[in-house]
Amino acid sequence: MSQTPVIRIGLCGFGTVGQGVWKHFTRSRTELENRLGVRLELHRVAVRKLRKARSVRIPAARLTVDALAVATDPSIQIVCELIGGTGLARELTLAALRLGKSVVSANKALICAHGAEIFATAHRHGGHFLFEASVAGGIPIIKALREGLVANRFPHIYGILNGTCNYILTQMEEQDAPYKSVLAEAKRMGYAEADEALDVQGWDTAHKASVLAWLAHGVWVKPAQMVVEGIDRITPADFKNAAVLGYGIKLLAVIARDFSSDELSVRVHPTLLPVGNVIANVSGVFNAISVTGDVVGTTLYIGRGAGQDATASAVISDIVDAAALLRGGKSAYQPAAETLPARNGCRLAPPEHIKCRYYLRLTVRDQPGVLARVASVMARHHISIASVIQNPAEVADAASLVLTTHQSHERAMRSTLRDLARLASVLERPVLLRIGDFND
Amino acid sequence: MSQTPVIRIGLCGFGTVGQGVWKHFTRSRTELENRLGVRLELHRVAVRKLRKARSVRIPAARLTVDALAVATDPSIQIVCELIGGTGLARELTLAALRLGKSVVSANKALICAHGAEIFATAHRHGGHFLFEASVAGGIPIIKALREGLVANRFPHIYGILNGTCNYILTQMEEQDAPYKSVLAEAKRMGYAEADEALDVQGWDTAHKASVLAWLAHGVWVKPAQMVVEGIDRITPADFKNAAVLGYGIKLLAVIARDFSSDELSVRVHPTLLPVGNVIANVSGVFNAISVTGDVVGTTLYIGRGAGQDATASAVISDIVDAAALLRGGKSAYQPAAETLPARNGCRLAPPEHIKCRYYLRLTVRDQPGVLARVASVMARHHISIASVIQNPAEVADAASLVLTTHQSHERAMRSTLRDLARLASVLERPVLLRIGDFND
Repeated sequence: MSQTPVIRIGLCGFGTVGQGVWKHFTRSRTELENRLGVRLELHRVAVRKLRKARSVRIPAARLTVDALAVATDPSIQIVCELIGGTGLARELTLAALRLGKSVVSANKALICAHGAEIFATAHRHGGHFLFEASVAGGIPIIKALREGLVANRFPHIYGILNGTCNYILTQMEEQDAPYKSVLAEAKRMGYAEADEALDVQGWDTAHKASVLAWLAHGVWVKPAQMVVEGIDRITPADFKNAAVLGYGIKLLAVIARDFSSDELSVRVHPTLLPVGNVIANVSGVFNAISVTGDVVGTTLYIGRGAGQDATASAVISDIVDAAALLRGGKSAYQPAAETLPARNGCRLAPPEHIKCRYYLRLTVRDQPGVLARVASVMARHHISIASVIQNPAEVADAASLVLTTHQSHERAMRSTLRDLARLASVLERPVLLRIGDFND
Repeated sequence: MSQTPVIRIGLCGFGTVGQGVWKHFTRSRTELENRLGVRLELHRVAVRKLRKARSVRIPAARLTVDALAVATDPSIQIVCELIGGTGLARELTLAALRLGKSVVSANKALICAHGAEIFATAHRHGGHFLFEASVAGGIPIIKALREGLVANRFPHIYGILNGTCNYILTQMEEQDAPYKSVLAEAKRMGYAEADEALDVQGWDTAHKASVLAWLAHGVWVKPAQMVVEGIDRITPADFKNAAVLGYGIKLLAVIARDFSSDELSVRVHPTLLPVGNVIANVSGVFNAISVTGDVVGTTLYIGRGAGQDATASAVISDIVDAAALLRGGKSAYQPAAETLPARNGCRLAPPEHIKCRYYLRLTVRDQPGVLARVASVMARHHISIASVIQNPAEVADAASLVLTTHQSHERAMRSTLRDLARLASVLERPVLLRIGDFND
């Protein structure tokens, strides 16, 4: 194969994902080269420390601690940014793109924060920025939205995008165990980070929702513009109440667009899903995404959302795509970046335009008249109650009051929550979950 | 946009799918043009009759009855073959490919019968043959296997690939209704063809399995080389027996490769799936495919498998891919065709190498000693019985004997069936179903 062109790849970052890419790429390299008709060379790898025990063997000559040098190496055409964060990662991504290189990234936080700048830079200099691994790990959801479902507009996309949260929720439900002990166990098992905040408070899911919303609708929605609620206030009692009502609980990203008003809503929150919904039954570290297109109807994708191997699978598919584009000379595939904003002039829906049904759990004094006071607050905000369950609370002399509502406005519900929290008979901050009324 | 290049598209065939393509393409055309940076023109449409009531409006000047003239029109670069069959469809596909055009097809029967010739012709003349719509309608499974999961080898692929069969099985289970009345109802509803044989006997599923097996493993397996069994001998009693045993029943395509022996098994048969398996719960006209990759683990895809809109969604995504390739000048994406056979030298597993667990329903004389005779036949062939259920049969003086086996060889099971059918106490041809022991 000495006559075939060579494409050189640089890896910036050699942690779990980087080592996974090296391992699987090395194994499948010959097959991929045959398929592409080019030679592929993992040319240089930027690591934090040169000497370190690693799960893969790599020649010392290929290693460097200078990630920026890898990103700007003139002999390298494809740069994989696998170091994470939004500092050095952004710097080297932009540096590589400015040199016309293609960049493959798994970094949803970076895309969410600097996507507009990154895609504009790629476009200006003729390179590509590929990011299949940034959302839902091994599930090829980016390619599905961008290419496979290109004939569609997307009224609804929703799904489980964070395996750590789904693992914790699954354990809480199956083991009837409180959040804190399950989280501690998840940390011991390596399913949760030492600092769990990014995952359990919903921010990681929000980053991914931002990426999907941009792909589907061409607008950048920042997490600060979304309703983002995490899973840390959910209790085993919530799972029992939800089950009585016919639901499971999942942390969902929801991207909904009303094509008549052209308003887009992007949110992340724990959601009650009917037990018959396939996504309600996706458990453990798996991710699942439901995509409703106006032509194709609803399609559903399930797979491992994280981990060394699933992420490496996605990174390698992007490397192959980037190599195919390079081999073809001129770009034969244009990322949606430059064109999507033109085709979609939608705006964010203000909270008063968001409607759903709610599940509300209040810890109240166990005495007469409390339900009447709660109900009158809700009536004042025109929130209509659909069902009530009353149980003993875990706190002494207290009761747990679980209410579900009919369709209500997000803004009215927020005011209701504020007023309920002021009632003397309401002992703890109310727990609010949303009910997912997805037709599919 | 007068300076932008124009890509002209011809439709051969203007039935349900063709009209769907016209309708949705016309609606999304401007968005797709912006995305690609080219003008797209549905230039000519070949129909069977010029004058006919149609659900879409189309200028008479664009119509012709000469499909071959559309396929060979020098001004047309992308030809959509939507007429079906393997006669004229093959002729015009090859004619267009020989002229270096790209062809988009939904025709699994054609690909299954003539895929090797078609892909070789596309490769020789520099065009592309795209076939996303041929398997699982609107689910972008071809793209997922070919590009998204390119880093993987595939030990297991299985799924529901025929919506008509899944609709019939779902109705039989939910309504406790016999096959014949459900089939008649499905025909009235338009969910089954007037001649149902292709669907219910498993051949349509076999065509699609052939396409997926080729994509994943690079070998053409013809339906005649597969075990292909249909759904027409399943009764409501089978659903009840399966439920007692903890299973649902689905018509599955199964593509299994053993990478140690490099043997490939491709089969189509009704399969008992554990009720907890997501695919066991996919009902109605939906398709579902489980793909296990050695890197990514198991990913699952669910969506509408047929119908005007889902198929049009897939055809349009192929048109856009073909246009992107044309715009890029030289090919930037090479179909797996030429390279896959090189990378995968596997051979078909002989039946004696196929193992699974079986469900066997016998209609037997209701008299003592029958189970002993049945059991001794099975013992002679080294088939080990796992469970027995005995019920009254629908036939007078007869009983229904339902046996499940431990892992057994396909060849031994066939011999057993032959010998059981010869027993005087066995009154009808035995019904054999396979049990799907998929880990995912």
